[in-house]
Amino acid sequence: MRNYPVIDDILKAKERLNGYIKHTPIIRCEKMEKRFGCEIYFKPENLQMTGAFKLRGALNKALSMSKEEISKGLIATSSGNHAQGLAYAARMLGVKAIIVLPANAPKIKIENTKALGAEVVLFDGDTAARWKKVYEIADENGYVPVHAFEDPTVMAGQGTIGLEILEDLEDVDTVIIPMGGGGLISGIATAIKETKPSVRVIGAEPALTPKYYMSRVNKEPTVLPLKNTIADGLRISVPGKNPYPIIEKYVDEIITVEDESIKEAMRMIARDAKLIVEPASSICLGTLIENKLKVRSGEKVCSVLSGGNWDLDALAEVYTER
Amino acid sequence: MRNYPVIDDILKAKERLNGYIKHTPIIRCEKMEKRFGCEIYFKPENLQMTGAFKLRGALNKALSMSKEEISKGLIATSSGNHAQGLAYAARMLGVKAIIVLPANAPKIKIENTKALGAEVVLFDGDTAARWKKVYEIADENGYVPVHAFEDPTVMAGQGTIGLEILEDLEDVDTVIIPMGGGGLISGIATAIKETKPSVRVIGAEPALTPKYYMSRVNKEPTVLPLKNTIADGLRISVPGKNPYPIIEKYVDEIITVEDESIKEAMRMIARDAKLIVEPASSICLGTLIENKLKVRSGEKVCSVLSGGNWDLDALAEVYTER
Repeated sequence: MRNYPVIDDILKAKERLNGYIKHTPIIRCEKMEKRFGCEIYFKPENLQMTGAFKLRGALNKALSMSKEEISKGLIATSSGNHAQGLAYAARMLGVKAIIVLPANAPKIKIENTKALGAEVVLFDGDTAARWKKVYEIADENGYVPVHAFEDPTVMAGQGTIGLEILEDLEDVDTVIIPMGGGGLISGIATAIKETKPSVRVIGAEPALTPKYYMSRVNKEPTVLPLKNTIADGLRISVPGKNPYPIIEKYVDEIITVEDESIKEAMRMIARDAKLIVEPASSICLGTLIENKLKVRSGEKVCSVLSGGNWDLDALAEVYTER
Repeated sequence: MRNYPVIDDILKAKERLNGYIKHTPIIRCEKMEKRFGCEIYFKPENLQMTGAFKLRGALNKALSMSKEEISKGLIATSSGNHAQGLAYAARMLGVKAIIVLPANAPKIKIENTKALGAEVVLFDGDTAARWKKVYEIADENGYVPVHAFEDPTVMAGQGTIGLEILEDLEDVDTVIIPMGGGGLISGIATAIKETKPSVRVIGAEPALTPKYYMSRVNKEPTVLPLKNTIADGLRISVPGKNPYPIIEKYVDEIITVEDESIKEAMRMIARDAKLIVEPASSICLGTLIENKLKVRSGEKVCSVLSGGNWDLDALAEVYTER
């Protein structure tokens, strides 16, 4: 079995997901354009049913298996959004979802996961340790593990975002995508580069733990110490085994963004675009705030806003910070 | 000259505005539907270029006059959003905009108005006093006054929102619209009732100053004491002369909403719909929160989110209030 998706998988995913997920709109933000010297567009997956893109991948995986295969249940771990995506998918298909969440996950993510009917297991440990736990529980109980970023079928589901961008913003020049585990960017980059290779694909990674950036510099997968970036959705210090080669093949440039710029971008997106996004999304605009992404006048730049699931208290703190 | 718009005026406005304003999307919010027992949709005019719907009416007015007529400039007063709309329109057409703002207008509205190139006159006085000032300055200088809610051409511009809702959500059952001066609801109600009279049109008004609600009860225009509702965009105590008969003709029900529910709705729209709206917009959802709007299961209810121009500090305060 291939450990990467190809464009056909993504086209099939789009068909499979049709009617189950939201085809989110493209939103232009003229107010920011003078400052950045290019046209600014957003692909707001914070408006997706679960408040984040992850539903696409999880649902694509679940719908690609037979009812028998998934009858015992689906299991995963996640900082939150993949959990919600999988729980939503499982509920839709009438099977159990078991979610291993880190003990310190934001309240809103735990609540939302439970509200979707999932069984929540809190487990103290880093991402790798939690995945180990997932496979243990899966083996014991016959559950199907759904990996958030190593599974090519999950990647294909996330890739449908790329197809929608090409469809709705035909002459897009550049797409900026957040890099956490790497599943989102692997899917979107595949969709874009195997459809229209001239579109620039940019990855945005927290400067505090720039694993894919350093892997590219070192020309090999590089594990970094995990630092506590505000972008909780991107707090991963190990490059994904399957995403890494896809990223090396298809991502034109990886740009690191400081936490301060991530927060400034959250405020800017609130003030000028009226959208609530989590820091793992606003990081895209951070590449422009830090003047690291070079653009030409009139260039159409589209940022993928991956999600908006953040406690209102935490949002308020960022909004009032000076 | 007629003092009300008819459907033809609104259809012409739609044509005239095409390409200049955003045709905002319809956004469904599944997360809220269990609680309210109906389908929830938003027409997010907070995503409009100026962060509010007012651009539609102001631009329709400006584009319906000759260059000579408006060459000296356009003038208006506004709590803020109409100001921005007019300033934007004037800049687009290369003429001057003069905006009389209340001395206590939110910072963001003053800044945004100036940033759009308008000349700002701060004037301490209620809405009526400020309009008097506007007509004085206009007479002295040959400016064209553009009234935010008495002008039928402005109403026709706002009415294009109604046409877009009918176009994008064909089987909509109920549309909820905030009531300030009454220009927005007059335009939208005319568009809807003169196209598809079976659609229910609901007005939402702050319980602190329910002028149109009391006018309906009293069967005559009724001026109320002005109280300080959080919905600053709706702080008007006098029913509009021209909107009043239109509202009596076309608005099926007027529902009053307490400030507490307006704030709860802002939080709910942030948490579940990931949109930033001002209280003058969230008031629509308040009619459901207070259980005053009766809906049947499966009913498609669309709230017009009129704008999102609020200081981040003020937003943070509402988001963290318990």
